Amino acid sequence: MQDARVYNDLLTPVGFLVRTAKVFEDKVAIVHGEKRCTYKEFYERVNRLASALKKKGVQKGDKVAFICPNIPPMLEAHFAVPMIGAVLVAINIRLSASEIAYIIDHSDSRAVFVDNEFADLITPVRDQIPKVEFLVNICDTGPALPLPGLEYEAFLATGEPDPLPIEVDDEHQVISINYTSGTTGRPKGVMYHHRGAYLNGLGEQLEFHTRADSVYLWTLPMFHCNGWCFPWGITALGATHVCLRKVMPDEIFRLIEKEKVTHLCAAPTILIGMSAYADEKQIKLDRPLNIMTAGAPPAPTIIANMEKLGINITHTYGLTEVFGPHSVCQWQTKWEGLPPEERARLKARQGVPYIIAQHMDVVNLETMEPVPRDGQTMGEIVMRGNNVMLGYYKDPEATRQAFAGGWFHSGDLAVMHPDHYIQIMDRKKDIIISGGENISTVEVENVIYRHPDVMEVAVIPIPDEKWGEVPKAFVKVKPGTNPTAEDIIRFCKENLARFKAPKSVEFGELPKTATGKVQKFKLREKEWAGRQRRVN
Amino acid sequence: MQDARVYNDLLTPVGFLVRTAKVFEDKVAIVHGEKRCTYKEFYERVNRLASALKKKGVQKGDKVAFICPNIPPMLEAHFAVPMIGAVLVAINIRLSASEIAYIIDHSDSRAVFVDNEFADLITPVRDQIPKVEFLVNICDTGPALPLPGLEYEAFLATGEPDPLPIEVDDEHQVISINYTSGTTGRPKGVMYHHRGAYLNGLGEQLEFHTRADSVYLWTLPMFHCNGWCFPWGITALGATHVCLRKVMPDEIFRLIEKEKVTHLCAAPTILIGMSAYADEKQIKLDRPLNIMTAGAPPAPTIIANMEKLGINITHTYGLTEVFGPHSVCQWQTKWEGLPPEERARLKARQGVPYIIAQHMDVVNLETMEPVPRDGQTMGEIVMRGNNVMLGYYKDPEATRQAFAGGWFHSGDLAVMHPDHYIQIMDRKKDIIISGGENISTVEVENVIYRHPDVMEVAVIPIPDEKWGEVPKAFVKVKPGTNPTAEDIIRFCKENLARFKAPKSVEFGELPKTATGKVQKFKLREKEWAGRQRRVN
Repeated sequence: MQDARVYNDLLTPVGFLVRTAKVFEDKVAIVHGEKRCTYKEFYERVNRLASALKKKGVQKGDKVAFICPNIPPMLEAHFAVPMIGAVLVAINIRLSASEIAYIIDHSDSRAVFVDNEFADLITPVRDQIPKVEFLVNICDTGPALPLPGLEYEAFLATGEPDPLPIEVDDEHQVISINYTSGTTGRPKGVMYHHRGAYLNGLGEQLEFHTRADSVYLWTLPMFHCNGWCFPWGITALGATHVCLRKVMPDEIFRLIEKEKVTHLCAAPTILIGMSAYADEKQIKLDRPLNIMTAGAPPAPTIIANMEKLGINITHTYGLTEVFGPHSVCQWQTKWEGLPPEERARLKARQGVPYIIAQHMDVVNLETMEPVPRDGQTMGEIVMRGNNVMLGYYKDPEATRQAFAGGWFHSGDLAVMHPDHYIQIMDRKKDIIISGGENISTVEVENVIYRHPDVMEVAVIPIPDEKWGEVPKAFVKVKPGTNPTAEDIIRFCKENLARFKAPKSVEFGELPKTATGKVQKFKLREKEWAGRQRRVN
Repeated sequence: MQDARVYNDLLTPVGFLVRTAKVFEDKVAIVHGEKRCTYKEFYERVNRLASALKKKGVQKGDKVAFICPNIPPMLEAHFAVPMIGAVLVAINIRLSASEIAYIIDHSDSRAVFVDNEFADLITPVRDQIPKVEFLVNICDTGPALPLPGLEYEAFLATGEPDPLPIEVDDEHQVISINYTSGTTGRPKGVMYHHRGAYLNGLGEQLEFHTRADSVYLWTLPMFHCNGWCFPWGITALGATHVCLRKVMPDEIFRLIEKEKVTHLCAAPTILIGMSAYADEKQIKLDRPLNIMTAGAPPAPTIIANMEKLGINITHTYGLTEVFGPHSVCQWQTKWEGLPPEERARLKARQGVPYIIAQHMDVVNLETMEPVPRDGQTMGEIVMRGNNVMLGYYKDPEATRQAFAGGWFHSGDLAVMHPDHYIQIMDRKKDIIISGGENISTVEVENVIYRHPDVMEVAVIPIPDEKWGEVPKAFVKVKPGTNPTAEDIIRFCKENLARFKAPKSVEFGELPKTATGKVQKFKLREKEWAGRQRRVN
């Protein structure tokens, strides 16, 4: 049986491509600008990449790093690298050269593939990555070869297009290492396994209702939790990937229209940008669009604004350590008759575990007992299941801490509602303790989002002589508006317990991560300079 | 952690109910006539059944038999029995008392649950099932207790509603044994495992596009391949099960209308009945309906007739040994512009392996090499994957034969088309060898289905002095028509190679299995009485 050596009964997402390349041989797999690639071609290119890596001596267990935006080589890497049993290290392109050098070295990567726009991240640190044996230049934006090593297409040409066997002999074999942004200390390498990538790859599609005829736009970076496993899941269905080099609202809306995009994933901050752009340009969508959002708790106002555009929002929640989203705010038909604000408020909750995830709870920080289902008592979100990481690469102590008591600890504080839906109140380290009372920064932000002049907001604790900590709001206003700090504070006092209202407000841009998360730690660092805050 | 003992990271479909009972606590899980049961109640009843079984001494590995139509206890059994590590034996209610006694005894069932309409199947054979320790009467149609033993609700009352742990410690632990109809020899017990039931349960939903807001009508018997794993898959989504005691077209259409059914599964013969009924009653559906059909190759005419009613057909193919459907005739958007007959012809093919199945091929009977992708060369369909049985219970020799060469042998002859789609030509034992030429009975039937007077047809080989075998057609005509044998034969000669046309035609009802498969072996037995046919 010719195919027997290619096939494998173990759960591995690489097998999805083997099947889809037959079922949808001549269907468009990947769109990138004017380029179109069929599933047959995609599979051939993946086999070329895999065999080229083997020829360079890359073996099972070896690490291969990619520094690359959402373009075809990044999709190819998600299949070719694990196909030969190697481990993909997709690195955040917004990090500094020294952070990237740390990740390449810590992960023991033997090869690094670099999009030539980002070669400057490698050039200055080449002497800090001695384990790297070869570099490959991905020339998406032009022919320049800034680094020593072959150009990507020339590298592919050294390989063969014929099907290679999938070298997986254990479902828990490592498939990728994703480094967390590391708001404190060095980034940690989160190890994913084939079984989790298979199950979460399909699990995302079950929750998002994608199908073979879906068109998926790559707004979410693939270097972030392997794009929530969508490189694998979208391929499993035989749907179409639409690449996106730069995540800008004009380009997003252009591609939605041109490529008839049906689904995309994006952090709430991207939704804020899309919503503002659509307002400004008076954009009306002429067909249904589905957006999965996660990465930060979206304010109900953000959800309501998107749904006004006719977009259906699937709100999910997760972390790098659980392969991306782990819970979904499962829509209930009984909510359909409710007013839009109420619907958005319900949908802004982080919800219930995925069908494939199953295990999730909110527990008391000391006793690990589940908190009462009262929507009031805070505890920590803990998770278990097939989509939980193996651990942190070469960091047994951090792994031990993360799995204390046998559950993965998210570091997120939440309440459990009577209907079993979880709602995040804050990150453990973000929550404000003011005069002994907890103040959820998310709750304060959700109120400020309702102020008509506010485009984006972040609330943090600042030191206070009397109360220990008090809230401060950082606000980006909508163009053409000019609210005062007093306006914002008064609005909060009208809509919140008075002690939760910020004591001060600062206006301006907010610092963000590559995936659009507001970096509250940067705001805090400034406010707490020279002082010691409590440690969680 | 209170829930930790309930949860399990192993793949088992029982966990689906644990999750759904929380997420959709007050949503309708099961509709049965005027009765409604929420997911919370469903889970409580399952726990009651499981703990009642434990109290009676039923332990891990023990077999529990059910003789029951598609009513709530049958759904409850699919979770309660495997929850305690026991094995469900759901028995075909259309078998004879002696066949049922054989299955109960061969499966080593310790308990038998019997719907009181079917008590007559047990009463005469009670002395042939000495291993059975207790009986339970399911009183769906009335209070009569025809068998010694408790009534089902009284039995449930002996159990507790509190969550029980799922007693699975190996994903390949047996979850159920399904006896094949056994057209030759004794029925064989096909062993399913938890892993396959989990994956196929979800896999069916991925292919059929069911969602939480779907309403699923139970036309397909749950005793047939555990209802193609839909008891588990529909529950995983939190969709609604609509029970159906008797599969009659009037009742099907009444429930489609009343309960707003969105999805159902049925063998082609049920589609024939539905289509004739809809014609007669001039039924128009006022919302989309999706039907998955498998169990026999549907003629293109049957598909076209259903699609004329506005019904979307998903055509799948499988066998008891692979947990029900294993392949799907995946729809391609490029087919959309084709004429309806051409679309139906493409859709009548058995297609490509499921996303979760992956492995399927057509191989030469001797060499096991894949046949050419020419749509002409016949070979046997072979399968591998996580949805393939463990083997036949207590029958290592039959298991060895079925897995010769490391693949499961379907016994179905098919061709592989250039687009990688499989098309069944015949069962190995049904194909006609006439003067050395193969004649596919399916091909001849597909032509006869196009004759305007034909409602249903089966073609079989009959002995012939000159040719060895020749085709004979058994035809059920549409009401009010009266074609002659010559009409049918002439129609075939006009639309087929002449040697493939039947030499004789007989009119009347066709013998069928419980799931609506025509029992060709019964027709053959009559025609071949006293003669020896070739053995495959």
